[in-house]
Amino acid sequence: MKSNIDYTLYLVTDRTLMSTERLETAVEQAILGGCTVVQLREKDCSTLDFYNTAVKIKEVTSHYNVPLIINDRIDIALAVDADGVHVGQSDIPAKIARKLIGSDKILGVSAANLEEAIKAQKDGADYIGVGAMFSTLTKTDAKLTSIDELKEIRKHISIPIVVIGGINKNTIPKFHGINIDGIAVVSAIISQPNIKEASQELKRIFLQG
Amino acid sequence: MKSNIDYTLYLVTDRTLMSTERLETAVEQAILGGCTVVQLREKDCSTLDFYNTAVKIKEVTSHYNVPLIINDRIDIALAVDADGVHVGQSDIPAKIARKLIGSDKILGVSAANLEEAIKAQKDGADYIGVGAMFSTLTKTDAKLTSIDELKEIRKHISIPIVVIGGINKNTIPKFHGINIDGIAVVSAIISQPNIKEASQELKRIFLQG
Repeated sequence: MKSNIDYTLYLVTDRTLMSTERLETAVEQAILGGCTVVQLREKDCSTLDFYNTAVKIKEVTSHYNVPLIINDRIDIALAVDADGVHVGQSDIPAKIARKLIGSDKILGVSAANLEEAIKAQKDGADYIGVGAMFSTLTKTDAKLTSIDELKEIRKHISIPIVVIGGINKNTIPKFHGINIDGIAVVSAIISQPNIKEASQELKRIFLQG
Repeated sequence: MKSNIDYTLYLVTDRTLMSTERLETAVEQAILGGCTVVQLREKDCSTLDFYNTAVKIKEVTSHYNVPLIINDRIDIALAVDADGVHVGQSDIPAKIARKLIGSDKILGVSAANLEEAIKAQKDGADYIGVGAMFSTLTKTDAKLTSIDELKEIRKHISIPIVVIGGINKNTIPKFHGINIDGIAVVSAIISQPNIKEASQELKRIFLQG
C-alpha cells in the first residue's frame, strides 16, 4: 500500500472539534466524501483510550482500504498495525521513528521550513506535512509557513507534500499552480454539519487547480 | 538481565516532585543509595522531551547496570532500548504490550486488586506493581489497595510483587512479614534533600522485615 499513496485529501482527526457524532462515523463519512488518507490524532486522553479508538478507526479505514496514520504514538501504530505514523518536530526524531516502524510503513514528518523538509526527506520520511500554512484554532501557537517557502520546499523535495493548517475552501485556491500532492484538513471537515459533502467540496476545489 | 531482576528498591521518577536538581543526578544518587530498578515516568511533556530524557537516564542506568523501565510509552522504551516497560490499567493492554516488546524485555503491570493481578500474570507480566497502598500526593485519585488484599495477591501470584503508593519510612514496616519483592518509591526518594541517604534508609528499613 505504501508505494502508491493518494494524498489528495488527507483527514486529520480532532475530537475536540467535533459535535456529538462518533469519530468512526465522522471518519466513514469523510472517506465516503473522498478522503484518501486518515490521520488519527488524539491529545489529552489515556493511552488505553487512544488504543481503543485506533482499533475502531482501523476497522473503518481497512474496510474502505484507506491508509490509517497515527499521530505521534508509534506504540499505538504498532499495536493496531496502522499503515504509518506521523511525527512532528516535538515527537520522536524521524530517523528513530523509521527504525521502529521498519521500511514498509508510511512515515510522515511535519516541516515548517525548507531546512526541516530537507532533513525529514533525508531521515526517511515518505511524505512531509508542510505548515501551518494559515493560522488556525487547532494550533494557535504554530509558526506560519509562507506560500513562497512552500514553493522553495517543493523545488527541493521529491517526496509527496501535503499542506496543513487553516486549509479550507477559501484558502485552497492559493495552492493552485503549486505542485503539491494533497491537503490535510482538520476542522473544515471534522467540524462540518455534513462531513461527506464538506469533503467532496474541498477535494473538488483542490483538484480544480 | 530480565531473568534475575532485583526489585528491592524500585525508583519511580517524577520531575514535578523534584527541587532544582537534574533528573540524571537524582537517578544516579538513588542508584548509589541502593536503588535496584529505575522507572522513568513522564507526564505532560512532549514525546521528544520524553525521548531525550530517556536517552540521558539510560546512560546512567546502563553505567551502573541497573534496569531502566519506561512508564506507559512502549515507543520510547523501544526507541532507547530500555530494559522494559510498565503499563497501568489505562495504558496499552499487557497482552499487546508483551507482543510489542517481545519476550526479552521486562513487562510490569499495575494491579490494584487480585483480579487485575491474576490477569496481569496471565497476560505476560514479569512483575506487578500493587497499589496504591496508601494515599499519596502523586496519585490523588487512586483507589487504595488494602494490606489484606495484598496478602491475597501474594498467595495467588508467583511473579515478583512490588508495592507502590505512599511508600516511605513510616509505612514500609507494614509490609514486614508479607513476602513481597520490593518497594516502589516516588517522593520518599525523589523529593528528599539527600537522595542517596534517603534510598539507603528506605532499603535498610525494608530489608529488616
